[in-house]
Amino acid sequence: MASTVAGPEIERLIQLLARLPGLGPRSARRAALHLIRKRETLMQPLAEALRVADERIVACSTCGNIDTRDPCTVCADPGRDAATIVVVESVGDLWALERAGAIRARYHVLGGVLSPLDGVGPGDLAIQPLVDRVAAGGVSEVILAVNATVDGQTTAHYLTDCLADYAVKVTRLAHGVPVGGELDYLDDGTIAAAMRQRTAF
Amino acid sequence: MASTVAGPEIERLIQLLARLPGLGPRSARRAALHLIRKRETLMQPLAEALRVADERIVACSTCGNIDTRDPCTVCADPGRDAATIVVVESVGDLWALERAGAIRARYHVLGGVLSPLDGVGPGDLAIQPLVDRVAAGGVSEVILAVNATVDGQTTAHYLTDCLADYAVKVTRLAHGVPVGGELDYLDDGTIAAAMRQRTAF
Repeated sequence: MASTVAGPEIERLIQLLARLPGLGPRSARRAALHLIRKRETLMQPLAEALRVADERIVACSTCGNIDTRDPCTVCADPGRDAATIVVVESVGDLWALERAGAIRARYHVLGGVLSPLDGVGPGDLAIQPLVDRVAAGGVSEVILAVNATVDGQTTAHYLTDCLADYAVKVTRLAHGVPVGGELDYLDDGTIAAAMRQRTAF
Repeated sequence: MASTVAGPEIERLIQLLARLPGLGPRSARRAALHLIRKRETLMQPLAEALRVADERIVACSTCGNIDTRDPCTVCADPGRDAATIVVVESVGDLWALERAGAIRARYHVLGGVLSPLDGVGPGDLAIQPLVDRVAAGGVSEVILAVNATVDGQTTAHYLTDCLADYAVKVTRLAHGVPVGGELDYLDDGTIAAAMRQRTAF
């Protein structure tokens, strides 16, 4: 064990780093050594960045995005289409859509998907706040950009039911062949969906 | 870019995390989100662990190991064989040997290997301190546990020359088939070395 050669402080640092997604015990050890080697250029700035993030980051009370202001930068942006709400499972998905530059609209972060097996019900997600936003008016389209998993699709159907009473168009992302993807490597469901939803060339 | 949706504080955190070995830009983003989600159980403890590590960790003035005390836990351990010094390239290698529990001896961290191409000469490594430790007496064996790379082996030869004038046995780790390894997947050099250094069964 490293605890016998390094102090408990280093061991604690390694244990915490190992809890980050993408880092295992071995890479956490490497990361800790790297941090200790780059003390002034990496370790101190990272400690400070974590402190600042902890101090300032808040969840947007409108959409659930994380930012250092509330309402968040996206909700406060007057250049965005306020009549369109893109519903995502997580902030990570929101970032992915923004990176793709796919749309300049508002978002709504659910905070997960319905998953009866994991005990996640409608009350555990930000579904009512979404209905409230739509009920408040001014929204013409809700795009369900949930992941194409079973739980994601179940959630999409549930949301559609919740929004059925409002004069709002509910859409979802297209299924199909990923750009750059090869048919031979795709699952049958994706190929069938791409075929069903084929478009004019 | 995430910077347009999240604040510069989050972007800075992601950039710093991406500089850790094992984390790329994408996994750094995931790690940042994970930290923000686990604010009290992970983000705050990690910030504190980094601060404590930065404050307390020192390099051992004898062997170059990192610890919160000087001399380090290894050098201060009376249960270890002080007559044997295991020479390693890095603290990570020292930890690896300790994890393996291969030997209860003292260490000497070189801080790298000789690498003319990268401009690393004898003066850049802790070679003179090693010679000084041997010259001070009480050392009967120096085990060169440098990596089996070209630069590592060059360094081993250089160290052997440096220690030639002292009454000390210089040894190196055995080459051979890794435990659990399959011959078919090994390079010719390893197989040849394992054959040359075969032992009685």
